[in-house]
Amino acid sequence: MDEKLTIPLTPEKTPAKMRSEEDKKLLIQRLKRVEGQVRGIQKMIEEDRYCVDILVQVSAVNAALKKVGYTLLEDHTRGCVTNAVKQGEGEETINELMKVIQQFSKS
Amino acid sequence: MDEKLTIPLTPEKTPAKMRSEEDKKLLIQRLKRVEGQVRGIQKMIEEDRYCVDILVQVSAVNAALKKVGYTLLEDHTRGCVTNAVKQGEGEETINELMKVIQQFSKS
Amino acid sequence: MDEKLTIPLTPEKTPAKMRSEEDKKLLIQRLKRVEGQVRGIQKMIEEDRYCVDILVQVSAVNAALKKVGYTLLEDHTRGCVTNAVKQGEGEETINELMKVIQQFSKS
Amino acid sequence: MDEKLTIPLTPEKTPAKMRSEEDKKLLIQRLKRVEGQVRGIQKMIEEDRYCVDILVQVSAVNAALKKVGYTLLEDHTRGCVTNAVKQGEGEETINELMKVIQQFSKS
Repeated sequence: MDEKLTIPLTPEKTPAKMRSEEDKKLLIQRLKRVEGQVRGIQKMIEEDRYCVDILVQVSAVNAALKKVGYTLLEDHTRGCVTNAVKQGEGEETINELMKVIQQFSKS
Repeated sequence: MDEKLTIPLTPEKTPAKMRSEEDKKLLIQRLKRVEGQVRGIQKMIEEDRYCVDILVQVSAVNAALKKVGYTLLEDHTRGCVTNAVKQGEGEETINELMKVIQQFSKS
Repeated sequence: MDEKLTIPLTPEKTPAKMRSEEDKKLLIQRLKRVEGQVRGIQKMIEEDRYCVDILVQVSAVNAALKKVGYTLLEDHTRGCVTNAVKQGEGEETINELMKVIQQFSKS
Repeated sequence: MDEKLTIPLTPEKTPAKMRSEEDKKLLIQRLKRVEGQVRGIQKMIEEDRYCVDILVQVSAVNAALKKVGYTLLEDHTRGCVTNAVKQGEGEETINELMKVIQQFSKS
């Protein structure tokens, strides 16, 4: 198994099934495309392709991942954050939201 | 073939074999790890994992790709740009370098 | 008057006085410091200082402004967004929030 | 004196007068505009303006400063870096360039 997760997981925090099967399919499709692009970059390096062309491709993958990230961020704010606020438990969820926005923005 | 390249390729610009086999191997290793992480994110979405955890992982992949990008940028500056400058043809290469730095920084 | 605002203003949207006088004072203090740093950069250019030193200083100012931005973002989420969600009007406010996060992250 | 410099200065590294008086004037003009914008943001906070409007303005200032930074980066690469490479002393200058690009990109 080659997935290497560098984050502590919190399985107890199950999202309230807010992502529809349709949305999940679309996100996974976009990530499969990203996966293919990352393999493409490996091939470019293998074949000694021009560095600037490789860098352009790395930038394209980053931009695609950022888009996936913004979609997840929006889902999270509309779903979990909104629910927590409505139940009067917004404080902690917003702390967490702010932290992840900063981490994501800098990446 | 699933690599989808969104950039025009310029096969005529072959880099002067400046990347050693060792360097190439290391870069490809890092990209294989990124590929595994992207697959891991797909699985997280499949399994309805907590959005913030997924976002942390997306940020980690972005950061890893940025590092690969900086390595490529440095190789390019030490190799191609330095050679072009020495041959009195720095102008165009530096134009290209500046453009790719901006594109990469914003990604 | 030299402030040049490049954004359309919406004076009708008065924030519900959510920033305390203390918070406002601290934010303005940080911005006055940024203002002084920007003047410092002008002087560095005037005096033909080493470009890398100027760039380091530009990066420091950007980082300081980003911090101010994150503070504003957090205030906004805790204040306006939370209020809108509680009143069942979260939809539009979250749209706006997502747009401003993207714009800010890319700046 | 209100300029507060947070970086160690290296006055001995005088740039070889590569910036023309015209270029310097343009850079200073842009920075004066940034200075005015930062003052404008202070006034917006003073007047309790809508947080999103303030954030849009903070993003605009960041973007303007980034542009100034890219101009400085380009001048530096065309000037100092090119000269160093021609004199066979590119190594150290490129190290420094890469470091400042990373710092600037993350800011």
